[in-house]
This record gives sequence, structure tokens and C-alpha cells, in this order.
Amino acid sequence: MRICLAQLNYHIGNFESNFQKMLDAIHEAKLQKADIVVFGELALTGYPPRDFLEFEDFIQRSEEYIQKLLAHTADVAVVLGAPSINPVPEGKDLYNSAYFLHEGKIQFVQHKTLLPTYDIFDEYRYFEPNHSFGVVSFKGKKIALTVCEDIWNIGNENPLYVTCPMDEIMPLGPDIIINVSASPFDHNHANERLSIVSQNAKRYNLPVFYVNHVGAQTEVIFDGGSVVSSPGGRIFKEMVYFEEAIETFELDDVVAGSQNIEQEKNKIALIHDAIVLGIKDYFKKLGFTKAILGLSGGIDSAVTCALAARALGGENVMGMLMPSQFSSGHSVDDARALAENIGMPYHIVTIQELFDSFESKLKPMFKDLPFNVTEENIQARCRGVLLMAMSNKFGHILLNTSNKSEMAVGYGTLYGDLCGGLSVLGDVYKMDVFALAKYINKDGEVIPLNSIEKPPSAELRPNQKDSDSLPDYAVLDKILKLYIEDRKGPKEIIALGHEAALVKRILRLVNINEFKRYQTAPALRVSNKAFGMGRRMPIVGKYLS
Amino acid sequence: MRICLAQLNYHIGNFESNFQKMLDAIHEAKLQKADIVVFGELALTGYPPRDFLEFEDFIQRSEEYIQKLLAHTADVAVVLGAPSINPVPEGKDLYNSAYFLHEGKIQFVQHKTLLPTYDIFDEYRYFEPNHSFGVVSFKGKKIALTVCEDIWNIGNENPLYVTCPMDEIMPLGPDIIINVSASPFDHNHANERLSIVSQNAKRYNLPVFYVNHVGAQTEVIFDGGSVVSSPGGRIFKEMVYFEEAIETFELDDVVAGSQNIEQEKNKIALIHDAIVLGIKDYFKKLGFTKAILGLSGGIDSAVTCALAARALGGENVMGMLMPSQFSSGHSVDDARALAENIGMPYHIVTIQELFDSFESKLKPMFKDLPFNVTEENIQARCRGVLLMAMSNKFGHILLNTSNKSEMAVGYGTLYGDLCGGLSVLGDVYKMDVFALAKYINKDGEVIPLNSIEKPPSAELRPNQKDSDSLPDYAVLDKILKLYIEDRKGPKEIIALGHEAALVKRILRLVNINEFKRYQTAPALRVSNKAFGMGRRMPIVGKYLS
Repeated sequence: MRICLAQLNYHIGNFESNFQKMLDAIHEAKLQKADIVVFGELALTGYPPRDFLEFEDFIQRSEEYIQKLLAHTADVAVVLGAPSINPVPEGKDLYNSAYFLHEGKIQFVQHKTLLPTYDIFDEYRYFEPNHSFGVVSFKGKKIALTVCEDIWNIGNENPLYVTCPMDEIMPLGPDIIINVSASPFDHNHANERLSIVSQNAKRYNLPVFYVNHVGAQTEVIFDGGSVVSSPGGRIFKEMVYFEEAIETFELDDVVAGSQNIEQEKNKIALIHDAIVLGIKDYFKKLGFTKAILGLSGGIDSAVTCALAARALGGENVMGMLMPSQFSSGHSVDDARALAENIGMPYHIVTIQELFDSFESKLKPMFKDLPFNVTEENIQARCRGVLLMAMSNKFGHILLNTSNKSEMAVGYGTLYGDLCGGLSVLGDVYKMDVFALAKYINKDGEVIPLNSIEKPPSAELRPNQKDSDSLPDYAVLDKILKLYIEDRKGPKEIIALGHEAALVKRILRLVNINEFKRYQTAPALRVSNKAFGMGRRMPIVGKYLS
Repeated sequence: MRICLAQLNYHIGNFESNFQKMLDAIHEAKLQKADIVVFGELALTGYPPRDFLEFEDFIQRSEEYIQKLLAHTADVAVVLGAPSINPVPEGKDLYNSAYFLHEGKIQFVQHKTLLPTYDIFDEYRYFEPNHSFGVVSFKGKKIALTVCEDIWNIGNENPLYVTCPMDEIMPLGPDIIINVSASPFDHNHANERLSIVSQNAKRYNLPVFYVNHVGAQTEVIFDGGSVVSSPGGRIFKEMVYFEEAIETFELDDVVAGSQNIEQEKNKIALIHDAIVLGIKDYFKKLGFTKAILGLSGGIDSAVTCALAARALGGENVMGMLMPSQFSSGHSVDDARALAENIGMPYHIVTIQELFDSFESKLKPMFKDLPFNVTEENIQARCRGVLLMAMSNKFGHILLNTSNKSEMAVGYGTLYGDLCGGLSVLGDVYKMDVFALAKYINKDGEVIPLNSIEKPPSAELRPNQKDSDSLPDYAVLDKILKLYIEDRKGPKEIIALGHEAALVKRILRLVNINEFKRYQTAPALRVSNKAFGMGRRMPIVGKYLS
């Protein structure tokens, strides 16, 4: 038997496009002499469809397209994920299901049991958990269909759940495990995925065929990396990352375990590739081709710009150099060098006169109050207005250039440098931005060395440095990761050797700046805990603040 | 037996303040000769604590304060909601529980069974559902403790669930039902709440004591309205809305059904009171006292301003009148009349020079391209910069004045009139804004009649009217409600008699403007489906768009 894994880039709610893509894959699978072609979880709808699932109209469209797919299953079986309607009134209206289509009929449907409801996942919001299990017989083999999370509770050791679906299915004697997934990227996720697929293959001594989505849906990035494991747990093939792929495997080869191909895993390279795909898909799926951003001469805007150029082409990225009276001479030089390295268009617009216009308008109210953060913010907001004007006039999407360390402590101006439709680095700590810059430069200078080496500064008042108000990023990033990703409290972080007053100050800054993050663009998610939909915090709370 | 319901305004994560408030209530309950005092769901933590629940440190603090409360239970029993730790490794780490404290000990804990995971609710994200039931014996009575949603599946007719907790408890022979709730306001919710309490009292023929939170937590507003029902389902007392209250009931009186007191329910009055409380609590819980907003002379900013003045005092609301070259003469007059009616400070700042400064800076790029939405947005953004500068310099919170109809179709400028820390009217359709204006004026003119009667206009180009690009608000609001609140698809809305092309255009506008709403302030929630945390939509989706 030959099983084809179709690792595709879907578009949420775009049924026609997703369907056409699946038809093309079925055609390709047939050329590859596949008996079964397997698509991802909720493939027709795209993942995550979020509250579109609450619309009957949306579910009807999904069902109509399943009917259309059936017409193409005469000589190849199709496995795909799609919502299915709960036939009884008790419990939520939908299941998250894996369908097995063949010979024009729905031969079998297996609902998902374990509904991830943490971080970015809201599945219990929409779906009823499954309680009954089956296998489907096909060409003399019994196939267990599982949906994503259902293979992630091996031996019931995942503390989120009380059921292990594969343990329930095993008495039915399956020969093969197929898993349809939509399992998002983070820079450590590929290792976990390989491990979980391997552990299932080992525990049940069965071949496992795991297919993932690829492509970004706003902030959530799917890296692909679909996996085939031989019984016993040896990885047979880990498919390519960040690209669509359609690949057919001979079951006998997989059972024999005749190869062991995995992808390379370098944290910074993965983050780089994920972000490039994230930018590319954000623009493509919204129907835009051009980006604009402010270039300060600093490292964040330089890295954002280089990544955008790789995603969209340098000619499609517009740089705006907007020096103020506080900008150092090298700011414009470094930004110009970057733009020239990339070969992208740019404009230079000074903002002092704009700033002065506001100061003069505000003078009757401000009188002789001293220059403070207000005036710093006015500069950032003048830039925001210029960038948005260019964006509006010429149809660019403005990219936000803030990094995760800044976003965490609120080091940024709402409606100023926090403007933008997509936050490119909002899930990348400053130290990783440095690493990304070096990685981008590995085959030659793209980002000017001076942008990497000079002390970070917002340049909003004379001789300002980030280090005036923030600790060294090496220390800050460690404390932030302990709090944000690892969810450690102040006592635990202090016990790890960090200075108590600093820890309290940083955690307080994180919590009191929730209001800024609430109004900031979605940030491409590359860690297991990004700001945005996966981290839900009260604004008016008073905890550690 | 005398049962005291303590309907309090908690602050998320502010354990010390919540604890002190509960101590005061215990003191008052003793004065009222209560045997039991009942607080709300997750009272010590405030509701919803959101991802704070994922921090062990946060849970430990909650447990420490339960220990502190125990010291005050020698001569009165205390019922409260708080998280409790799941003792077994399987399943989520926490339960959402009701505690019964007496004589210095935790006498009984009942976990919540039905975990709301829809709209603003994310309970399955944090909590394991309960599967075991008990009653607690106190002074010769058996008491059933239930947590909020657990009484909302009468006869298993709520399609979200498969279990009816009270049906499970009844074989244990309870004499009294106590329900600790955190059930947020919407303008129709009080009727549903009374109905559900009454139905429980009737079905089980038991007295029901239902206690709710009061007060706002960012966008979520709790209206109080705690309820006591006599067996058989006659409402004995519906407690006050939008205020804290501590009230003790003699069980025998409740069983005898000797009174029937309910609150008046007028939709616009409820929305008015909810928003005033929402503004008041947003400021108080963040430690601010002063608001600022732009006054255009139009109805949205006028209503926002009047509501803010009622919440904070007119002297604490600063108005900014910022006419442009396109502002009509009456704009400033109407805004000034409003400010004078309210007795609030205001400033007039013209924006033409600011606009001209931007135009001149942009001229090298814009060349002779015609005036379009770009220039409209620049005006709105100049106002945004001025408002934020005043906010920063003087410590005001900027209020966003957009209504729900505009938010829905994207009629507003990101980083312009969409600036602000709190959206006051973001869940109020335009037709209801008119009704609110009339309600505010019921005892004398606050909002100038001209602001109510003139045709709505953004005044960003010559002779602009909202009706140039939008249908009549009476029609628009109906279509929006069908789509947003009722989740009807285009076919269903058209079948209700709305013009097909218009319906498609409006639904498309709603969906393509998700990116704007993503970056807009939290909106005080007064309907059963507000934009924000309770409505989760993809940005890059392509459905009806």
C-alpha cells in the first residue's frame, strides 16, 4: 500500500482555493501511484478558523466541499480533517473530525478526543470531545485515524488529559496509525513532534503517518515537517520545513525501516525561515505585495527589513528614514547602507518641523513644563503618521519593528513605533535579534555591522541609550523568558539568582504594559508563548504590579 | 437560618484588597446576624483572572488568603469561590471550586462541572471539569453548593453540555441551593438570570441563593442583581444592580415566599448604568482619575463625554475641540455647548497647520496625487497625536468614542480616532447611541440637540456625510446585529428581507476590518456579543470577504 502525505498551505475560510489545492494534490498523488492521500486537520477550512465555526453557513460550505471531494475518490482514498456535526442535541454542535473518503462515499469518520484548549488553542470552545473509537479497513489493512492532539497523551502522561485515544483504539487491532495535524511552529517544536511520533510508533509497534499544515495564518505559523515513523520508533522521513510537499511512501518500506531522514534544526535558522514565511503569507493571503517600514539605523528595523525583503523581494519593501534633531549622524548612514545593501527604495523625511508644529500647538496647554516622555512620544507618533500616510497612499502594509523584549516591558510608543499591521519580531527577544542579524549576514553583509555593534538607542532625547532605563538585554531576556515562557513567579526567578528588586521591577513592567500589547499588531509566533492570542492577561489586574 | 449574600466589586489579582473587602462583609454579615455569608465565584482572585491562573505563585497566594479567611469563620460560615488544586496528575491542574469554611476549617469543597468556554469565557483553558457531587450539612440543613454555569443546564436542555449537576446532587437530598456566580452583564442578561434561578427553584422545589459579582474588569461588566428564589420559582428578591450590596435573608421567609421584589429593566437605562460603572472601574482599578477625549460636536463623542462625566465627575474630563478646514461652524459650537452643559474643562486647537506640515513633508512622495482617504486619515491622526500628548503630559486616559456600527464596518482611522485606552461605545450600535443621548437628556439638556439631530459626519472632506458611504444606520444596525450577535449567514439575512448586494457588502466590510479591531481598545461589553475577547476572528481569513 502506498500512502501519500500532502503537506499544504491552506487559507482560512477560502474553501474554493483550499479545494483546488487538494484536487491538485490528489492528481499528484495519483501520479505517485498512491492508494491514500492524507491532508491535514481542518484542511478545507484552514486552521484555526476560530469563530467562523459558529456560523452554520460556514459549516455548510465545508460540508458542500466534502461532497465535491467525494467525486475525486474513485481510485484513491482521501483522508482529511474537517468539522462534522454532532447528531445529538447534548453537547457542542461540532466535532473536529478525520474523514476517510473512498469510492464516492464517506467510509468512516473519527472524531477528535483531546481538544487542546491552551495557548493559542480554543478547541473546546467549538468542539465536543469524542468518546467512541473505530478503525477503517482498506485494502486488507486496518487504519487508525487520529487527529493531532490525540497522539499527544502517550501512556496518559500528559497532565492535561485523562484519556489516551490510541490506548482505546488498540484493542481494535489497527495496522497503521494516520494522524492529521495542524501543529504550529515554535523553535523547539520539531523536536517534540518527532519525539511524540516516534514514541507512538514504539509504544504501539505500528507505522505512523503524520501530516501537518505548512504556511502562516496571521501570527500562527505552520512549519510542515510531516513525519513518517517505522514501527519501533525509528523516524523514516521527516518532510521539508516551510514548504508545501506531496510525498508518497510504500508501506512495506516504512515497516522495514529502510531509511532515516531528518531535517536540520538550528534555532536561529528556523526562526528566520518561519518569519520569512510568516511575512510572505500575511501579504499573500490579504492580497498585498508591498511593505513599508521605518528605518532607524538600529538593529530591529534592519532585521525586520531584511526579513521582509527575503519574503517579498527588496523592490517591494519601502524604507522611510525619518531622523529627528536627536538622531545621531550614523542613524541615517546605517539605514541608507542597509537600503543599498538590499537594493530597496527609500525616502528621507526629517521630522523636526512636524515635531515643532505640535509643540507650538500644545504650547498654550504645556506652557513651560519640561521635556519628558510626552515629547519623545510625539516624535515617534510623527513617524507613525508619515508611515501610515505612505501606507494609505500607495497600498503598503506597515511592518511593526518592535522586538519581544521591548514589547514585554512597554518600551515603545503606542500609535508611534508600535504602529503596523504585522509585528515581525514581536516574539523574538533582543538577544535573538542580534543572532538573527548575524545569521542574515552569514553569506555577506546585509545588515550594516554598525547597526549590530552600536549600543541600542531609541534616540528620542539627547544621548539616550536603552541601557539608561533597562538592564542589559542578556539579563532582561533571561528574566522575561522565565516569567513569560516558563511562567515562574517572582520567588522562583529570584531563587535562580536574579536580583530581587530588578525582578520585581521587570515583572511589574510586563504586567502594567498589557494595555499597550492589547493594541499592538499580531506578532509572528516563533516561541511556545508569544504575546497575543496565546497569552491572555487582564488589563486592570493588580498582580505583581 | 440566616443567609447573607455579599455582592462585591473585586479587583483581579488584588488579593489583599479583595480579602479586606470580604472581611468587612463578614463583619457586616455578623451585624445582620447571618449564619452564612456567601461571596461570588473566584472571589479572592477576581473574575476573570485569565492566564494569571497558570502561575503557581498566583494560586499559592489564593490559597494563603483562604487560610487567612478561615481565621474569621468561628461564628459564621463563609462560602466563596476560589481555584483549588487537582490532587491527581491526570487532567488540568485546577478546579474552579466553591468552598464552605466554618470553625476555622475547610468543611467542604464542591468543584464546578460545567465550564463555560464560549464568548468571553475560557474556563476549560484552566480548569478540569468536576465529576463528583456532594452536599454540606450545616445547622441541620443540607446545602448544595453550585458554581455559576452549573445551574444553567436545566433538564439537560442547554445544548453545550451533557451533564446536569443539580440532577446529580438531588439524590443526596439538599434543602438549599447556593450558587456562587460571576455572570457578566449584557442588556438582556438579567431576564435570563432570573428565569434560570426561578426554574431551578421550581424544578427542585428548593430555595435558591444566587450571588453575583458587581463591577467591571476592563471590558467585562458585572451588574450584580443577585437573586433569592423561593421554592416553586417565585423570585423573593432581586438585589440592586451596579452597586455593592450585603443583604441577609431568613431562610424561613424565603421558603414561605413572603415577598417578590425585582429590579426595573429598561434596556437603555441598563446600558447607561453599565457603561458608567465600566468607566469608573477602569479608571479606579488602574489608579487614574482623569479622562480626555476629542469633542467633534457629533453625537458619539458627546455621549461618551457625558457618560465619562457621570463616572468621573465633569471636572475630571478634559475635552479637546480640534476643528480642521472641513469642520462645519456648528461643530465647535455644539462641542462647546456640551462642555459648558457638563461644566468641564476644554481646549480648542486647530489642526490645519499640522495637516499642512504633513502634506508638505509628504509632497515629494505624493506629488500631485489627488486628496483621498490618506488625507482624511492624516487629519484624524493629527488629532490622535494631540490627544495622546495631552494624555501623556497630564496623566489622563484617552477615551475612544467609536460606536459599534463604525467599529463593525471599519469606519474609523487606526491610530487616529480609534486611539484610546478604553472604548466606551464600542459595543453600542449607532441607533442605541441616539437612544442613550435622549436618555441622558431626560432630566434636562446635557447633549446639545443639534448634536443629536444633525446628520452624522466625520467631517474629513468637504460636505462629507456618513450616509455617503454607509446605509442608514437603522438598516445597517439590523444587518450587523443579525451577523454579529445572531451569527446568521448571508443567505439567512437576505431571506429576512435585506437587499442582497448590501448584505454582502456589509458582511465583507465587517470581515476585512478585523485588523482594525485587533488594534483597538477593549470595548465595554453591553451585548451578548461584543468585539474583543468574546469574538475571535482570523485576520487573514477569506470568508464572505
